[in-house]
Amino acid sequence: MTSIAYLGPAGTNAETVALAYASWLTQIGQEAQLCPYPSIAQAIKATAQKETDLAVVPVENSIEGSVAMTLDTIWQLDGLQIQQALVLSISHALLSRAASLGEIKTVSSHPQALAQCQDWLQKHLPAARLIPANSTTEVLKHLDADRTLGSISSPRAAQLYNLPILADSIGDYPDNCTRFWVVGLQPSPGGTHTSLAFSVPANAPGALVEPLQVFASRGINLSRIESRPTKRSLGDYLFFLDLEADARQEDIRLAIEELTTHTETIKIFGSYEILNIR
Amino acid sequence: MTSIAYLGPAGTNAETVALAYASWLTQIGQEAQLCPYPSIAQAIKATAQKETDLAVVPVENSIEGSVAMTLDTIWQLDGLQIQQALVLSISHALLSRAASLGEIKTVSSHPQALAQCQDWLQKHLPAARLIPANSTTEVLKHLDADRTLGSISSPRAAQLYNLPILADSIGDYPDNCTRFWVVGLQPSPGGTHTSLAFSVPANAPGALVEPLQVFASRGINLSRIESRPTKRSLGDYLFFLDLEADARQEDIRLAIEELTTHTETIKIFGSYEILNIR
Repeated sequence: MTSIAYLGPAGTNAETVALAYASWLTQIGQEAQLCPYPSIAQAIKATAQKETDLAVVPVENSIEGSVAMTLDTIWQLDGLQIQQALVLSISHALLSRAASLGEIKTVSSHPQALAQCQDWLQKHLPAARLIPANSTTEVLKHLDADRTLGSISSPRAAQLYNLPILADSIGDYPDNCTRFWVVGLQPSPGGTHTSLAFSVPANAPGALVEPLQVFASRGINLSRIESRPTKRSLGDYLFFLDLEADARQEDIRLAIEELTTHTETIKIFGSYEILNIR
Repeated sequence: MTSIAYLGPAGTNAETVALAYASWLTQIGQEAQLCPYPSIAQAIKATAQKETDLAVVPVENSIEGSVAMTLDTIWQLDGLQIQQALVLSISHALLSRAASLGEIKTVSSHPQALAQCQDWLQKHLPAARLIPANSTTEVLKHLDADRTLGSISSPRAAQLYNLPILADSIGDYPDNCTRFWVVGLQPSPGGTHTSLAFSVPANAPGALVEPLQVFASRGINLSRIESRPTKRSLGDYLFFLDLEADARQEDIRLAIEELTTHTETIKIFGSYEILNIR
């Protein structure tokens, strides 16, 4: 039985992705069990401490950008390897027991969901109070008791909690996707993409040209670069890179070896495939 | 009278910085007036639409990283120039009417404040519910009515709202600073730092080496590089750079001119000085 940690409760986008991954595991003959956690950091820590076998966590959204908690936690803990990347199309709906939009006084959801619907909210509910919540499903249990309350959640959550959709497709950007990583302590399987992160000795951004040249000079494409603070002092950064290559190839192995001469600390999170799910 | 927009209500860190800037304006003979707004985006838009003369907004925290809403809003609006950067030391305290930590059942504050105190909370209040709020001061008005509630806010807010500090210096990292920008429609005054942002034609991160080489080959140091999604599709980025140089210098002007041959859209936010405030 493979146990999979994710940010719960039921109905979150992370659960949708964890379910898709679990059903794929079942198809290849491995039974899987989902384990909800109250935060992304706790889901990742559960896997690092062998409470669960895997964690499914969001890395990056096409609108809001990186998920800082995921990157920071994976950097801090040792031994986690990426098994798979999964890309989910995100659809936002307004769930409520109100008879019409005019009755809504408050909208509450995860801050990223509120941010991704801000134009729609400003146009259709300009007077509504916006209240942040810990997840896109946390507020749903209060909708029955308060008809002036709406929550932004997925059409799947509406089904799961048996709640009406008052307005569908309310996101401000049509191409809204979130990329998730499946992480575990076993070696990564290999695949089209490799992820790594490193810090540089001092004056980090000035010293970023050399690490990037290591890959550019070999024609290895970077599909992403992201800076995160080291938390030591303002202006001191880590860099997360995604390479469009498999680290088991000889030229990539050599590039990474050369890279380590320009870095302070480096962590290789392994090579993996990317799958789209709906 | 110079009007200054910021994320309110009274007692936020943005207000502390706006007050410091206003008192500096007073010293040079300009009267200033503070105008609180309910979100960072609204504070910046007020200035772009000439409702206010200036906006004081957070750009980056030494622990949590970039403030996405600030970068995205400044990129979307036209004509905003940076007048000044201000760095504030952040101090977190637990404010509550509880007689001791044992009485606290819920802690509510801005998500960044909760995130920056997560180790302390896990150690001292492992059973407390953590509830996100829109600012570090929003919850303070509920503390009188509910003695089991605590909020993470600044020692200054404790004074302002006449509330007791139950625990001081509860942040997980000692060197916690936030950098703010003062933006307005007038030309920037010049100074030690220059900020700009650009998108690249396609396959952005692979094409980042050339723009960085423009500065590296001239010995111009970058103090920061940050990627943000363009919101068009996953994997399509903007880059924000801070240069340690004044754009009015001839070599910097030439570097920026060369840079434009490698970029799709580019915006120069001007040159300015950095000041530390406490």
